[in-house]
Amino acid sequence: MNVRLNPHVSVDCVIFGFDGQSLKVLLIDRNYDIPPEKLTKPLTLKLPGSMVYDDEDVDTAATRVLKELTGLENIFLKQFHVFGSPDRLKKEEDLIWLQAETHMKIKRVVTIAYYSLIKIHKTTPSDGRVVWLDAMNLPELAFDHNNIIQVGLQTLQKEIQHEPIELFELLPKKFTIRQLQTLYELILGKKLDNRNFRKSVSRSGYIVPVNEKERNVAHKPAQYYRFSHSRYLKNQKL
Amino acid sequence: MNVRLNPHVSVDCVIFGFDGQSLKVLLIDRNYDIPPEKLTKPLTLKLPGSMVYDDEDVDTAATRVLKELTGLENIFLKQFHVFGSPDRLKKEEDLIWLQAETHMKIKRVVTIAYYSLIKIHKTTPSDGRVVWLDAMNLPELAFDHNNIIQVGLQTLQKEIQHEPIELFELLPKKFTIRQLQTLYELILGKKLDNRNFRKSVSRSGYIVPVNEKERNVAHKPAQYYRFSHSRYLKNQKL
Repeated sequence: MNVRLNPHVSVDCVIFGFDGQSLKVLLIDRNYDIPPEKLTKPLTLKLPGSMVYDDEDVDTAATRVLKELTGLENIFLKQFHVFGSPDRLKKEEDLIWLQAETHMKIKRVVTIAYYSLIKIHKTTPSDGRVVWLDAMNLPELAFDHNNIIQVGLQTLQKEIQHEPIELFELLPKKFTIRQLQTLYELILGKKLDNRNFRKSVSRSGYIVPVNEKERNVAHKPAQYYRFSHSRYLKNQKL
Repeated sequence: MNVRLNPHVSVDCVIFGFDGQSLKVLLIDRNYDIPPEKLTKPLTLKLPGSMVYDDEDVDTAATRVLKELTGLENIFLKQFHVFGSPDRLKKEEDLIWLQAETHMKIKRVVTIAYYSLIKIHKTTPSDGRVVWLDAMNLPELAFDHNNIIQVGLQTLQKEIQHEPIELFELLPKKFTIRQLQTLYELILGKKLDNRNFRKSVSRSGYIVPVNEKERNVAHKPAQYYRFSHSRYLKNQKL
């Protein structure tokens, strides 16, 4: 019979944001508090995360992490995958940091990953350690966090083809078709045909024009649209 | 600061099967080995599951559980949700059983749930504790396993509307439209219109007739169909 020790359980949050140009992901500099002379690396970025506390549901832990870092509440966080390979802590510096941070003799951590989409301008980083980086162009992160973001992105790609509703969390209330298309293209990682995209917007039935156009722009002002939640629900097939 | 103890980590598998009439789920009688005079309850059913072993990936643990019980390998298991509420072990009999079974002082278990679809006739239950019950009409199960199956079923309902490919795992290689429709109706929990269903089968492009009809049936023999994987892939939008 195998020996059974219990791994620790954590949550990690992949928070996507959109600044109009690129898809960003929220990261934490875990060495922010360390005096420069003690630093072995200038920057070690990781996903916002935490061990799950006693008497705390795993979903609650994820909500707590997001609130502590951004001050945001009532944000939809979606569980998307559990990362439980025994060699997640194989990088020695990760293990050292984790044991110092938690004061626990940790050998293995199974982490439950969540993703969320938020408007960047809405966040009020309550914490100087927070940085937003381009999700498509990340440096090497701590632990297996590059992989977690990759899987989160794949989940999002699948999701927006069936239920694009989440996307509108990333856009301002009024947006142009160009902004929406840019967002789709960033997430899907490919260019979409402009004409076909406009057609599918019209056909959608839930992306509706508002009585307003862009102002103070160099080019021809574009029409603003909004997402109609009620029409979206009505259009659902089943 | 909160005290942090680490919960144990387990996997539980929701294995769906189809016998032509009803959607079944595979369950284990956890008291199978107990002599009748020591039984407090005649039958206590649970999902097949296990603690995650040391040095074992969580996905590997799920595969192992399925193999131990059914002898089946290379079965697609899909992680669908983590159940991590601190009160999952609130029923005293569950806690007593778990501690006796594992020889561990367990207070809390976070479980990662997987689902799988298999052909019932393919399984060779290597274990007398295994029973198949109607997924829509279950007795009270151990732990929160009724809820886990419910969430598994909801995931499956969502999944088959976008990617029905998994469904064909439940059907024989050659099947009638009636069998396919019955399966859809069981999973979605509602009757579908016969004519519309036949239309969407024709439109699918990947459910193709084979040169054979039912034999030895009292009613008019129905045409057999098969699932064409290659056509399915070709039809994918993206």
